[in-house]
Amino acid sequence: MAEPVGVAVVGASGYAARELIQILLRHPGARIAMATSRQDERLDALHPSLTGRIDLACEPFDADRLAERCRFAFLGLPHTASMAIVPSLRERGVKVIDLSADYRLTDAQVYEDWYGHAHTDPAALADAVYGLPELFRDRIPAAGLIANPGCYTSTSILSLAPLVAQDLIDRKSIIIDAKSGVSGAGRSPKLTTHFPECNESLTAYNVGRHRHTPEIDQVLTAVAGGGEPVEVIFTPHLIPMDRGILATIYATPKKPVAEHDLIDLFRSFYADSPFVRVVTRLPATKDSAFTNFFDVTVRVVRGRIVVLACLDNLVKGASGVAVQNLNLMLGLPETTALL
Amino acid sequence: MAEPVGVAVVGASGYAARELIQILLRHPGARIAMATSRQDERLDALHPSLTGRIDLACEPFDADRLAERCRFAFLGLPHTASMAIVPSLRERGVKVIDLSADYRLTDAQVYEDWYGHAHTDPAALADAVYGLPELFRDRIPAAGLIANPGCYTSTSILSLAPLVAQDLIDRKSIIIDAKSGVSGAGRSPKLTTHFPECNESLTAYNVGRHRHTPEIDQVLTAVAGGGEPVEVIFTPHLIPMDRGILATIYATPKKPVAEHDLIDLFRSFYADSPFVRVVTRLPATKDSAFTNFFDVTVRVVRGRIVVLACLDNLVKGASGVAVQNLNLMLGLPETTALL
Amino acid sequence: MAEPVGVAVVGASGYAARELIQILLRHPGARIAMATSRQDERLDALHPSLTGRIDLACEPFDADRLAERCRFAFLGLPHTASMAIVPSLRERGVKVIDLSADYRLTDAQVYEDWYGHAHTDPAALADAVYGLPELFRDRIPAAGLIANPGCYTSTSILSLAPLVAQDLIDRKSIIIDAKSGVSGAGRSPKLTTHFPECNESLTAYNVGRHRHTPEIDQVLTAVAGGGEPVEVIFTPHLIPMDRGILATIYATPKKPVAEHDLIDLFRSFYADSPFVRVVTRLPATKDSAFTNFFDVTVRVVRGRIVVLACLDNLVKGASGVAVQNLNLMLGLPETTALL
Amino acid sequence: MAEPVGVAVVGASGYAARELIQILLRHPGARIAMATSRQDERLDALHPSLTGRIDLACEPFDADRLAERCRFAFLGLPHTASMAIVPSLRERGVKVIDLSADYRLTDAQVYEDWYGHAHTDPAALADAVYGLPELFRDRIPAAGLIANPGCYTSTSILSLAPLVAQDLIDRKSIIIDAKSGVSGAGRSPKLTTHFPECNESLTAYNVGRHRHTPEIDQVLTAVAGGGEPVEVIFTPHLIPMDRGILATIYATPKKPVAEHDLIDLFRSFYADSPFVRVVTRLPATKDSAFTNFFDVTVRVVRGRIVVLACLDNLVKGASGVAVQNLNLMLGLPETTALL
Repeated sequence: MAEPVGVAVVGASGYAARELIQILLRHPGARIAMATSRQDERLDALHPSLTGRIDLACEPFDADRLAERCRFAFLGLPHTASMAIVPSLRERGVKVIDLSADYRLTDAQVYEDWYGHAHTDPAALADAVYGLPELFRDRIPAAGLIANPGCYTSTSILSLAPLVAQDLIDRKSIIIDAKSGVSGAGRSPKLTTHFPECNESLTAYNVGRHRHTPEIDQVLTAVAGGGEPVEVIFTPHLIPMDRGILATIYATPKKPVAEHDLIDLFRSFYADSPFVRVVTRLPATKDSAFTNFFDVTVRVVRGRIVVLACLDNLVKGASGVAVQNLNLMLGLPETTALL
Repeated sequence: MAEPVGVAVVGASGYAARELIQILLRHPGARIAMATSRQDERLDALHPSLTGRIDLACEPFDADRLAERCRFAFLGLPHTASMAIVPSLRERGVKVIDLSADYRLTDAQVYEDWYGHAHTDPAALADAVYGLPELFRDRIPAAGLIANPGCYTSTSILSLAPLVAQDLIDRKSIIIDAKSGVSGAGRSPKLTTHFPECNESLTAYNVGRHRHTPEIDQVLTAVAGGGEPVEVIFTPHLIPMDRGILATIYATPKKPVAEHDLIDLFRSFYADSPFVRVVTRLPATKDSAFTNFFDVTVRVVRGRIVVLACLDNLVKGASGVAVQNLNLMLGLPETTALL
Repeated sequence: MAEPVGVAVVGASGYAARELIQILLRHPGARIAMATSRQDERLDALHPSLTGRIDLACEPFDADRLAERCRFAFLGLPHTASMAIVPSLRERGVKVIDLSADYRLTDAQVYEDWYGHAHTDPAALADAVYGLPELFRDRIPAAGLIANPGCYTSTSILSLAPLVAQDLIDRKSIIIDAKSGVSGAGRSPKLTTHFPECNESLTAYNVGRHRHTPEIDQVLTAVAGGGEPVEVIFTPHLIPMDRGILATIYATPKKPVAEHDLIDLFRSFYADSPFVRVVTRLPATKDSAFTNFFDVTVRVVRGRIVVLACLDNLVKGASGVAVQNLNLMLGLPETTALL
Repeated sequence: MAEPVGVAVVGASGYAARELIQILLRHPGARIAMATSRQDERLDALHPSLTGRIDLACEPFDADRLAERCRFAFLGLPHTASMAIVPSLRERGVKVIDLSADYRLTDAQVYEDWYGHAHTDPAALADAVYGLPELFRDRIPAAGLIANPGCYTSTSILSLAPLVAQDLIDRKSIIIDAKSGVSGAGRSPKLTTHFPECNESLTAYNVGRHRHTPEIDQVLTAVAGGGEPVEVIFTPHLIPMDRGILATIYATPKKPVAEHDLIDLFRSFYADSPFVRVVTRLPATKDSAFTNFFDVTVRVVRGRIVVLACLDNLVKGASGVAVQNLNLMLGLPETTALL
């Protein structure tokens, strides 16, 4: 293998960044050459689990220094912070894998409606490739800007793509009842994620207004080849566990379907996707935790299709898929550093 | 207040029985005069939390001895074990509050289909009163046999009753995505409830074949006043926490509805029910844990009705409602010992 | 029973305050006549679990208004905030039960050394009665100011009092390895109590410098009747659970002892204490959770005494014992509202 | 690198076996050529997390078939089951890494005293090498039989070895207060590890009689170079989390010591041990979870030495150290497949 390529982790203090660093430390084709954070600290001070693993101090973001050392930048920033620096990186020829939501929606107006900020880099939206390799594998190698998908979004889209691609379901009938571990809420302490509040408790949140909704609608409508827009009902729930998303998805088939045909459909649709495991058991988040796998099954209940799927929100839902995208961009096997 | 009435706890080793005993110890109108269990032990050996609270040893079940000492028997037995002893108790004039499923379904054939056993006391099914006071308060005082509802069932029925009573929703459109803490699975150790298996994990189970399904269908059809049967899709999930059920319920309205009208409907429907709290926030299980409250709200999302509701599966979902039924049978305030 | 006495909950937003309110709502001799908080909200907005239970809005603290309505004030304030208002309450004849640490240490200099603030009300330290009824039951009824003990402190002191009172152990040999659920850290979100940080993790904290150390030393030295000061090694740990403290305590006996003699000693020492349960099994926090019980056992291992004890940090470790003190001050049975 | 060596996983259904398989799947020098279990199932049926990772069915144990395919056997069996088959493997020239306790104690009588069974292969005890590379690195490469240490044992011994090797502490003064996640109790469902029993609870167990006690005594006495035997007081606790052991260890120094000197001692003692991280912060189990690291710090509190240390009981406490031993036996870098 060639000399490892230099990569930067911009915004290194969060959970997805830590997960990314842990994966990259096992990657034979990449070397973390820079980490940035507003906190001017060593990586192992921000993340004690990295003690003895990497000898690197965070520095403030600087596009020039980054471009000198790195060909790729992973952005682990909050939304709006990403689009503030992406242009400077692209001008310098750095390829960007953005883990925020800033380049996921193709329509700047939809972004503004859901995120409450005008988009400051709307021209780039057309260039961004949605980084879900299972659906857009062909477009990723040549991309200069990857919009890495959200964790709920990946779970939902991968669960429904085979069905909408085959036009098997009523596009207005889709209900996504999604459940996530608490790391999905990020690393900033808040009352809702304070241990004695969310431990031993269960609640829905952002009912009818979670920002992943338009992203799911948009990508599934594209998978469907256009036509009537997909409009999902998406209900997220907070589960007292660290990691993992389980989605229980209900859809009305256009005509009666058999369970085994659906399983066959999923298996053939994902035949070339090494991280999709179509199973017949009911998936449990623990079996995909700390892995890059997406586990899915399909049932038919009283004529309705029920898809049950899970993944690790920090790996397949964030940093693992980011490295999967890196692998495709580097021409490496998709599974490099991910098994 | 009169002399406390003697009550028996038959099958005292499980979680619902423990909860029941704790409630009864605060009850001014009832006295635990007998506890039975296959394990011939003191109650505080079975349940160390009861140390210093009650000085009583379990004995084998004996209908005569029970009838001598007790006017009421709570049955905390597995299904089929209840119907094996209910006739002997009723013959002796003991009023029975059965926490098992044996007398909940009015049709013995449906029981056999879902529970895999022929019903051995089918004649009594017509006498049994379904012990959900919020819906059947009038019939409970005179009942000799209460079929205490299941925990998932109470959550689901109370969430939907106002809507089906007013015929506001399509009866085939109902999806109940239910989530339960692990105590709902009982106290017998199994691999699926072994701590390192279910902790930090999340999974659905019994998809399309959970035994609470026909109970929900039956009671909601009755609430609707007959006509087209209600047929729900019911998906239970196991959540890594001790207690609590949250149900997220989706239904298609027959005509467009406004959220505030639905909140008003729920408030008026439950105006006389002291344990129903119609809230506008999203309910969290922790806020009703260790209480007899049922918390519920209603939202409209993209034209669909979403009901979100929770209760404590061991209290309002089992032993609390059992005492609520006892209170009604004794002519006491419904809230006695339950606040 | 006479007309319930008016009581105030000063600082109503924390966990101990919520627990206190829930206990007082069951109390026949007390009525919550006032709640104060910097947040100008209804109690059921601060604590959704109180919905339907109490119809009261918090108001800013005002000594005059409080004294008009209340004969007792419970203070759920951070340290230094209590001593800022206690004089104003005592001047107005209000009896104070202070849950903070401000009046627990008898020596103002020790307070300053450990809390980093000069004591602003040192004269009152001599008046304050340490509110551990099991040891100071006689002094509580007449007290005007109760210093309600800390949760770690109560666990440690009750575990060791029989041994030091009998002068059975080397006073410099005591090691207290204490473990607490996360609610002990309060309700303010911090990184260390952010769910994804402390869940599935275990760590010690404040090793050698936890502020409960001098409190334990002081009270145990008093129990010993003076002489050589007790000096404990105290190590607190954070456990991923909501509630409960378990202390595992090691001490070297002055001469060989037998386990059963120690059990007998504990039983006779606490014969009149309805909330102490001396058991022979190993106590588990869950068995005393949500109760006012203190569970304790004693073992001898390789000649060393090992005491194992637990209690609920929010009940027996804070609000339950506060109500126990109130009961004594009102001349009511010690267990009122606490079983 | 040469052709990967064939290895067997004997007793493949438990948690340590699953962890071992996951590590070996990343190992460039080893190939799982056989798995045995009483359950005649595929590995991914026993462990759904292995779906898509390995295509192998368990078979009954057979020494001949094993010896044909494998040069190494890892034994994940309960005690007594290991010694029943070890002779048959050694006769056939298979090197054995035994994760059970069967060959850890050098004295067959001590084994019988603590395990309640006569040892059936006592002659082999002298050949077995205690597989703690940090202490016995030199003896491992040539070993034919590795007694892989227990999880509590490794934590305790590594925490104390520098101190006893330098004869700094009183050998009778050692108190080990150890806390373990529930996976340490194995995969067989029991009431004590049933989720609703141990979740949200905390208790000590086997106080004064845990079987790791004589193992700790024996190895530390050897590290001390003989002389007065080490006799520790060992108290294990069950913590509501999946993984991780934290030990809080107290010892009386023979003469006054300074904290920084102890830190220096630990650093130099473990200078060549890549998996020991001597830190100055207080270790948290989460930071070593899912890794082969042992994290340790030392404090001095009121003249007493307090060592705080943690590791992942399934990795560094079982399967990771087993692979570390394999690496040494194969002449590979100690960290192969373990970072």
